[in-house]
Amino acid sequence: MTARKVILDCDPGHDDAISIIIAASKMSNLEILGITTVAGNVEVQKNTTNALKVKDLLGLDVPVVQGAERPLVRKSEIATEIHGDSGMDGPVLPNPKSRVDDGHAVDFIVEQILQSEGKVTLVPTGPLTNIALALHKAPEIKHKIEEIVLMGGGTFGNWTPAAEFNIYVDAEAAKFVFESGIHVTMFGLDVTHQVIATKDIQQRLSKVDNRVGKFVSELLVFFGDMYEDHFGFEGGPIHDACTTMYLLKPELFDFKHVHLAVETKGEFTYGATAVDLLGVTGRIPNTHFAYQVDQEAFWDLFEAVLESYGEVA
Amino acid sequence: MTARKVILDCDPGHDDAISIIIAASKMSNLEILGITTVAGNVEVQKNTTNALKVKDLLGLDVPVVQGAERPLVRKSEIATEIHGDSGMDGPVLPNPKSRVDDGHAVDFIVEQILQSEGKVTLVPTGPLTNIALALHKAPEIKHKIEEIVLMGGGTFGNWTPAAEFNIYVDAEAAKFVFESGIHVTMFGLDVTHQVIATKDIQQRLSKVDNRVGKFVSELLVFFGDMYEDHFGFEGGPIHDACTTMYLLKPELFDFKHVHLAVETKGEFTYGATAVDLLGVTGRIPNTHFAYQVDQEAFWDLFEAVLESYGEVA
Amino acid sequence: MTARKVILDCDPGHDDAISIIIAASKMSNLEILGITTVAGNVEVQKNTTNALKVKDLLGLDVPVVQGAERPLVRKSEIATEIHGDSGMDGPVLPNPKSRVDDGHAVDFIVEQILQSEGKVTLVPTGPLTNIALALHKAPEIKHKIEEIVLMGGGTFGNWTPAAEFNIYVDAEAAKFVFESGIHVTMFGLDVTHQVIATKDIQQRLSKVDNRVGKFVSELLVFFGDMYEDHFGFEGGPIHDACTTMYLLKPELFDFKHVHLAVETKGEFTYGATAVDLLGVTGRIPNTHFAYQVDQEAFWDLFEAVLESYGEVA
Amino acid sequence: MTARKVILDCDPGHDDAISIIIAASKMSNLEILGITTVAGNVEVQKNTTNALKVKDLLGLDVPVVQGAERPLVRKSEIATEIHGDSGMDGPVLPNPKSRVDDGHAVDFIVEQILQSEGKVTLVPTGPLTNIALALHKAPEIKHKIEEIVLMGGGTFGNWTPAAEFNIYVDAEAAKFVFESGIHVTMFGLDVTHQVIATKDIQQRLSKVDNRVGKFVSELLVFFGDMYEDHFGFEGGPIHDACTTMYLLKPELFDFKHVHLAVETKGEFTYGATAVDLLGVTGRIPNTHFAYQVDQEAFWDLFEAVLESYGEVA
Repeated sequence: MTARKVILDCDPGHDDAISIIIAASKMSNLEILGITTVAGNVEVQKNTTNALKVKDLLGLDVPVVQGAERPLVRKSEIATEIHGDSGMDGPVLPNPKSRVDDGHAVDFIVEQILQSEGKVTLVPTGPLTNIALALHKAPEIKHKIEEIVLMGGGTFGNWTPAAEFNIYVDAEAAKFVFESGIHVTMFGLDVTHQVIATKDIQQRLSKVDNRVGKFVSELLVFFGDMYEDHFGFEGGPIHDACTTMYLLKPELFDFKHVHLAVETKGEFTYGATAVDLLGVTGRIPNTHFAYQVDQEAFWDLFEAVLESYGEVA
Repeated sequence: MTARKVILDCDPGHDDAISIIIAASKMSNLEILGITTVAGNVEVQKNTTNALKVKDLLGLDVPVVQGAERPLVRKSEIATEIHGDSGMDGPVLPNPKSRVDDGHAVDFIVEQILQSEGKVTLVPTGPLTNIALALHKAPEIKHKIEEIVLMGGGTFGNWTPAAEFNIYVDAEAAKFVFESGIHVTMFGLDVTHQVIATKDIQQRLSKVDNRVGKFVSELLVFFGDMYEDHFGFEGGPIHDACTTMYLLKPELFDFKHVHLAVETKGEFTYGATAVDLLGVTGRIPNTHFAYQVDQEAFWDLFEAVLESYGEVA
Repeated sequence: MTARKVILDCDPGHDDAISIIIAASKMSNLEILGITTVAGNVEVQKNTTNALKVKDLLGLDVPVVQGAERPLVRKSEIATEIHGDSGMDGPVLPNPKSRVDDGHAVDFIVEQILQSEGKVTLVPTGPLTNIALALHKAPEIKHKIEEIVLMGGGTFGNWTPAAEFNIYVDAEAAKFVFESGIHVTMFGLDVTHQVIATKDIQQRLSKVDNRVGKFVSELLVFFGDMYEDHFGFEGGPIHDACTTMYLLKPELFDFKHVHLAVETKGEFTYGATAVDLLGVTGRIPNTHFAYQVDQEAFWDLFEAVLESYGEVA
Repeated sequence: MTARKVILDCDPGHDDAISIIIAASKMSNLEILGITTVAGNVEVQKNTTNALKVKDLLGLDVPVVQGAERPLVRKSEIATEIHGDSGMDGPVLPNPKSRVDDGHAVDFIVEQILQSEGKVTLVPTGPLTNIALALHKAPEIKHKIEEIVLMGGGTFGNWTPAAEFNIYVDAEAAKFVFESGIHVTMFGLDVTHQVIATKDIQQRLSKVDNRVGKFVSELLVFFGDMYEDHFGFEGGPIHDACTTMYLLKPELFDFKHVHLAVETKGEFTYGATAVDLLGVTGRIPNTHFAYQVDQEAFWDLFEAVLESYGEVA
């Protein structure tokens, strides 16, 4: 089977890093055209550094291109409360040897899509700024995007009572993407809160005896502590990982095809995603909304992904 | 124990009717000062007629006073899709013999509270228009309101993807009430969707062999069919009943004390209630939010309430 | 000619006081059914005290009834920057001998209208809270209201860049009133800024040799200084006076019949009135918008009004 | 004196065309780095065609580069009511011989600014989409932009009662530009409605006996008729021309340095510009707001500009 072409657009980020690890593993049949970064969890420069560190860790040979420094319309918002100052606190990785590639993420995305023989899948796990800007610059790419597989939104929020962080940071960009007419597959909090790396999961994964496994374990400990302190959770939900796990094995998840509207005007609900699960709006569905995951199968596959990186040399 | 004084402010409405039945039963220790009506499920006049029918059915000797014909700021919205043309379709009750009392619900509420020796509890199960208007007219009543026990809102919606009907119809009034500083106990969709009168429940309750039981059974059949057709539910959630069930036995429910903000400006989220369950806003709690009910105990008590109306003569 | 029945609903207020003086003068053919007060320039209690002082000054025999303490939905906002701490700083009037009448302004308005043989004209020169609440309580009064002659709004603002004070304080009430279908005649900033009591005008009016003239002169000096300091104006615009001057002599003003929408949702434009002067919205006109005044005739008539109070005894 | 470097970003458009003619005349000391187009009055492709026609007419040797097809966040809106189907109806110009240059306007703007030795002035006379996108893509250009001289906004509207067309079409982009911290000089409706090409003006200009004068005269006749029909004006205000007239002779205009906020959330005021002329917000000025023009000097200079194109060959 031909590998599926993807661009990972992210703000690593603990769970973004895990998402890259999944996509780059031997278990996946993805051709990563590049990793693009965006302002989100922390400033874009830090996110780029983190992406390069992960690239080095995995020995990946793909371009890393930096993108938007701030949201489409609003001022920036960052989440050091959850990800620490570096945006990926916890495990200590060496400073990156790889260098960021020239150019702007938006141009990179447009060029890769236009050059590609087949269609390309976009996998945004941060704010949707780069994606919206690429669609702006070259609306014709729309027809060569197979699917946008994203982490964001939900029927409830985490950054505010009503809004999830990725959508909240750039709700205008999100509105643009959801209204684009492109096939959007969405992993929001409803499903990502079903994949919490509890202490049990952490312990189980800590036994994976290789560099990548070790790195992920350390990430999960730090991330879990943050979630426990902040939200009283039993561990960190590895939100972004849902996107690439889905690309490995779609049947892990159950979906509803629904209409979703992004709120950009509310006083208390800016960035909320109004998901029409009951079909009360009469609007045409624009989103494949993941609402359930097979947890056992998810963690089994995730463990196998980590194992696939081989023994520690 | 002295009876607790309550005013039932409602738009009956199938579940409003049930709420009155619970409050008026021998199992309850409530002194009903009056029933006030408000535009909501249907026009206020129809809601008044329905309240009078229920009053006759129960042989209740309490005033029924009509209130606001429309929301505080917006145009009216009605829900005949769910409650039928009469607002209480299903069982056929005779035309009311009782007459509506003179005066306006808002004046009635103000006077009752000011006259009462002790404090009064308000139990709104429709839009909050009357309550907001009463607080407007006589802000001093605030200190004599023990608690506002209301049905409305939730972390998700039913009338729109983001908003529950009662709050949606008059979000401005709701904003006013939640910001009033009065003790608010709220039963929103999160908990009312846990008390669905499924076919099993319907069958069980159909065995209650008295007039009231028969009436409730017929209500539940009609209401359940509406919910099945419209939303794909297995029966109708008896939303409003939670308020008076709580007054009978508070320990049926679990609560979180949280901040809640009512959205009045959103494009897709008008009437949403942003419930700060994670404590991310730093705002001071203003709402006792019911998030869980002991279902078994709930239905047991509800059955006992119906039984308490005695054998059919 | 039969006297026209009016209720003056106000928050005096320098220009509100002048408006009452005009209505109560011998030049007018108005029957003042009562003066009702509302929170606005300052707290409602202070506005009531000021209304009573004006009543005493004029020897008026009309009820003064206190109304809403706060806006329909939002928190209060007051304007001591312009009117001073008392709401009517400047001239020193003795403490009122008259007492406020019992009851609530909203009930008073409803009763007066229902009791009246003919139609009644409402003259609100403060926020529209009382008027909206009266229309809420008794929608049937709508058919007995001849006209609502109000001061508020405009194509630009004074309290914010986009909003005039009276509308800004309670935009939800204003929205309700403008959408009510009642004949609304509006004097907004576009026209009230054409009747500025400049130093020349102040000097001219200071020659009116009676108690009322003296009082008005002192008011205008204080008010003018406030406007000069705050806005760099050459004097104070006697906004509210336009309403009663119009009732004395409608032909002082030119009008356009236009659609007007009150903004209640904007981030920077809350309380703005979108006046469709170019007819671009296609919406049906709901407002008689005064856009021009004959300044010379206005001040001539105003001087005559003051003169009509007679020589100082 | 060194020529000042400008990029004309436009949606021609009658008045856009005139703006280019002014900039390209012998009277001006501007170096036009290029003309970029944006969706606005009509679709971007038509605007590009019109720009090319004007380029041919003037024998201009500058790049014409096409830009954004739609606004930053919202759906497109066009104004054929005013500009006709072609976006520049009226005079018949031959199909363009020039070809549009490769690349995207946003990239062109970024490159020109980065390559330029000195600073560059941007002159947007359409929606601000391209400018916002350029600032997004390369925030560092901010320091090399001397001034943004734009037509848009005002204290009142023309497309809606509250909003001017250019800002209304892409209020999100406008918000971004006004908040950018760059020196913004703004020609809004308050001043552009002072330069109406009345029949008298049309007649006077019709005597300019050269190709460009003839073209402008025909434009003004068509444009004037549209404004008369639509708005009851006595001719068309040559809005966009203010920008380049200002670059020729700044002292034609009087300015206030004020804070301006762009409304993106209002129900009736989307795209309004809240101009703080009274200084009531306490916000730091971000806009040089032109509020008055010396009309006589304006038309004298304008006539001279047309004359400078020389006799018809």
